[in-house]
Amino acid sequence: MVKSDIEIAREAKMQPIMEIGAKLGIAPEHLMPYGHTKAKIDLGYIESLAANPDGKLILVTGINPTAAGEGKTTTTVGLGDALNRIGKKAAMCLREPSLGPCFGVKGGAAGGGYAQVVPMEDINLHFTGDFHAIAAANNLLAALIDNHVYWGNAVGLDPRRIGWRRALDMNDRALRSIVNSLGGVANGFPREDGFDIVVASEIMAILCLSTSLDDLKRRLGQIVVGQTRDRDQIFARQLEADGAMTVLLKDALSPNLVQTLENNPAFIHGGPFANIAHGCNSVMATQTALKLADYVVTEAGFGADLGAEKFFDIKCRKAGLSPAAAVVVGTVRALKMHGGVAKEDLGHENLEAVRKGVSNIARHVENTQKFGVPVAVALNRFITDTDAEIEAVRKELESLGVEAIECTHWADGSAGTEALAHHMVGLVEGGTAAFKPLYGDELGLKDKIRTIAKEIYRADDVVFEGKASTAIADIEKNGGGSYPVCIAKTQYSFSTDPNAKGAPTGHTLPVREVRLSNGAEFVVAVCGEIMTMPGLPRVPAANKITLNAEGQIEGLF
Amino acid sequence: MVKSDIEIAREAKMQPIMEIGAKLGIAPEHLMPYGHTKAKIDLGYIESLAANPDGKLILVTGINPTAAGEGKTTTTVGLGDALNRIGKKAAMCLREPSLGPCFGVKGGAAGGGYAQVVPMEDINLHFTGDFHAIAAANNLLAALIDNHVYWGNAVGLDPRRIGWRRALDMNDRALRSIVNSLGGVANGFPREDGFDIVVASEIMAILCLSTSLDDLKRRLGQIVVGQTRDRDQIFARQLEADGAMTVLLKDALSPNLVQTLENNPAFIHGGPFANIAHGCNSVMATQTALKLADYVVTEAGFGADLGAEKFFDIKCRKAGLSPAAAVVVGTVRALKMHGGVAKEDLGHENLEAVRKGVSNIARHVENTQKFGVPVAVALNRFITDTDAEIEAVRKELESLGVEAIECTHWADGSAGTEALAHHMVGLVEGGTAAFKPLYGDELGLKDKIRTIAKEIYRADDVVFEGKASTAIADIEKNGGGSYPVCIAKTQYSFSTDPNAKGAPTGHTLPVREVRLSNGAEFVVAVCGEIMTMPGLPRVPAANKITLNAEGQIEGLF
Repeated sequence: MVKSDIEIAREAKMQPIMEIGAKLGIAPEHLMPYGHTKAKIDLGYIESLAANPDGKLILVTGINPTAAGEGKTTTTVGLGDALNRIGKKAAMCLREPSLGPCFGVKGGAAGGGYAQVVPMEDINLHFTGDFHAIAAANNLLAALIDNHVYWGNAVGLDPRRIGWRRALDMNDRALRSIVNSLGGVANGFPREDGFDIVVASEIMAILCLSTSLDDLKRRLGQIVVGQTRDRDQIFARQLEADGAMTVLLKDALSPNLVQTLENNPAFIHGGPFANIAHGCNSVMATQTALKLADYVVTEAGFGADLGAEKFFDIKCRKAGLSPAAAVVVGTVRALKMHGGVAKEDLGHENLEAVRKGVSNIARHVENTQKFGVPVAVALNRFITDTDAEIEAVRKELESLGVEAIECTHWADGSAGTEALAHHMVGLVEGGTAAFKPLYGDELGLKDKIRTIAKEIYRADDVVFEGKASTAIADIEKNGGGSYPVCIAKTQYSFSTDPNAKGAPTGHTLPVREVRLSNGAEFVVAVCGEIMTMPGLPRVPAANKITLNAEGQIEGLF
Repeated sequence: MVKSDIEIAREAKMQPIMEIGAKLGIAPEHLMPYGHTKAKIDLGYIESLAANPDGKLILVTGINPTAAGEGKTTTTVGLGDALNRIGKKAAMCLREPSLGPCFGVKGGAAGGGYAQVVPMEDINLHFTGDFHAIAAANNLLAALIDNHVYWGNAVGLDPRRIGWRRALDMNDRALRSIVNSLGGVANGFPREDGFDIVVASEIMAILCLSTSLDDLKRRLGQIVVGQTRDRDQIFARQLEADGAMTVLLKDALSPNLVQTLENNPAFIHGGPFANIAHGCNSVMATQTALKLADYVVTEAGFGADLGAEKFFDIKCRKAGLSPAAAVVVGTVRALKMHGGVAKEDLGHENLEAVRKGVSNIARHVENTQKFGVPVAVALNRFITDTDAEIEAVRKELESLGVEAIECTHWADGSAGTEALAHHMVGLVEGGTAAFKPLYGDELGLKDKIRTIAKEIYRADDVVFEGKASTAIADIEKNGGGSYPVCIAKTQYSFSTDPNAKGAPTGHTLPVREVRLSNGAEFVVAVCGEIMTMPGLPRVPAANKITLNAEGQIEGLF
């Protein structure tokens, strides 16, 4: 009988977090415990590591996701565990899951099977409070904005041009669009407003890109909260909000340490959206892990067209990281969907569809290689996959000079990723990595977007709709032209059509809107409908979540 | 030179929280650390203490507050420290401060001078995340309500009669009154809504009155979220919200342990408003402290007319607590204000005003005695107080058979409250306490209100305005008639006129509105303007809060 994720997690023999820290050489006084199996790492201690040499960074990315699932997080955990298994000092860096969606469709997110991080209930609920701190900082700024207008509006904010929204870590469609300050004189000036989920807050992106408390404060201060009637930018520092926001975020900036089911160290820290933000765990966590471990495995959100591109062009560029290798994760089932098979027909062998769908993973491999990073493919094996199908994928990829390695970590833990681990060590030690971002800082914003569209999405053209061109001109005029771009589009296809599976060509990238994330220091090009506050489904997962008679949480997975 | 609270707090030599726990006999495995100087106490361990005998419970309450300050929290800390100093095993139980007001006028709240609890910055910021958890549970219920209506409204909620508001731990007047669900079909049905500060959420009151996770879940389930068109009550359990809310609150229900500057154990847990709620720390914390210490000192919000009355009639009644003694705290300065002196004239000796103002404290003493509890008065000594003024207070109170004891814990720590500690031990060991609530459960709601108005506020009459009578009839019809009442009125006077200092008589108590807190199991009688979402001042404290070069927080106090 196959055990559920929660059953496996409950059987975990967790080690005290101080012992996990000790594996990385962290003394107990540098760990701030949250219970006995979670800790934050002291920022002063992190500073003291500056002179340590950096370990090798391996990115785990994936194909365009399908309903069949690909298993990027489990592969990250499995590879990290397997590197430890073969005698390497390895750590993992993952994103923190958001609380809101736990009560919606999907339940929690902390890997799966025998490739999980624990304590998974805590990680999926309040964890160490980072997301609540981000919400508080976000909402303090919002309160200071309306308070400033209320008391006379000395900086001359145009209330119609306040761009800063409020935030909650909850799926709540009723808060997407509101009118605030109703009820009379004492409550202020009514205006249109709304809430985003915390992972969509610019504060989340800022926290994840900050390299120190000073850098955090600088970035918070330069958030653009709105404009004057004359369209001059108003910054958070003009409202004297940056100091108090930094104070609210000082603990949240410390990376969180937990463990895998195999008791290996995992950093879980920060979780920005992968569409309107860059979709990677924090720079603080990755840099700390690199100072403490010889191998660091990390993942990026969505497929490689969004996730890996942003990991390279935003996170690595800005943080000076130089990845040594990358893994593109796929499954035979998902490739069959990219080859045109419907979800209900995935149980049957279909070599034709496999060969067709492999175009998706092949292009992601090719794209990733453009960043100067050696690549392997991890194939998550499902029971229904036939040997012939696996072989077909392997063959197709061989012609690109890339090895596809079967993985069974979901069922077998690190034993199932040992081959991948050996292969990745070979790639890393081969020393062929020569990381470079896709474009230079100096390229104009439109050309940056065009470069990504052509090189990564393989679009024929880019169209700047509506006010996108004006917005770009404004941003460049205000000094934001050197920022990287962060493209928000569907994760389901290289194109902006979620139904265009495989490796579409001949499409056009429509840029509908351009937004400045001045604290995060990137420019968001919106190329589709982007939902920044999810709703709950007809029957929310919350209905079944409860404590059972043993005090265990039911329904979270 | 007098040191500031923050300077004193920074000089504190804190002991590891495990050592503080050890003073109460708690083994390390029963403490969930949050950093090295804060911990939560395991709920299973608390259950295992059930057979322990209870210690003696001492309530610290006060006069009607004035701009001069009275020092209730410092006296609670000072008395607890002094009981330890004279060889008693004593612990303190305090409320958690709210985050929002820290960014407004007042800065933090964790005692003062040499009578503080530490780590005070942490306690005033996110602490152990309890308030964020309460906000999340509150807002999950709100999201489930609007989601239920969105998907077809099977229970038949009348959207005009949804009584459940959203919550944030922030001073934000712009959120007091909003219209939500704007923006079209996908965002739901627009309706009037608003946010309260977390301390005003019914969830806060529920958490503070719950005696176990089961009791918490039961209470969450019976929250009335609104009514049908036919005015039938709709409960949270009908939306299947109670299980997930309990899961969100499971850690928040565990009491928090910290220490005083003198390294004595202090429980800081829960902080409901003292107007629309009962204003006491959690029952869980008080009951746990009583199982572990011989003496437990706790405080109640505002003056004794609100705070002590609710402590006795709501918390003690519901939790089966039997207080052994009470302290009413006052200062000469505050009594002079009750005697008619303006704040700027408090520096001059004024025996006439002292004698007049003493009427306020005398009535609180008399009221407290009505609950069958022996009482002493603690007089917080200020430098400007003259011996003659102190003597005048002492004399006036002597005639009531109550001793007024000078305290200097602010400047001297426990040495300054040693006399008070000895006196309280005498009162407790005298064994004269015979606690009884002011009224029986079976009395009608109107008569309960009348009893409090006459016995405590000394009003001549009660007037039920507008829909108050209908609301009471509805509540009694629905089975809420046996609940205690929680009166929301100004804290500045026995009457509803904040300017009526001293011991006013001949007034009328107007009951404007009556609300049911069905999860908290009390009925709120609103007798004045009650602000459930504060605003920020013209120059918010947030503007000056920042990290200094040493990484310390400036501006919080």
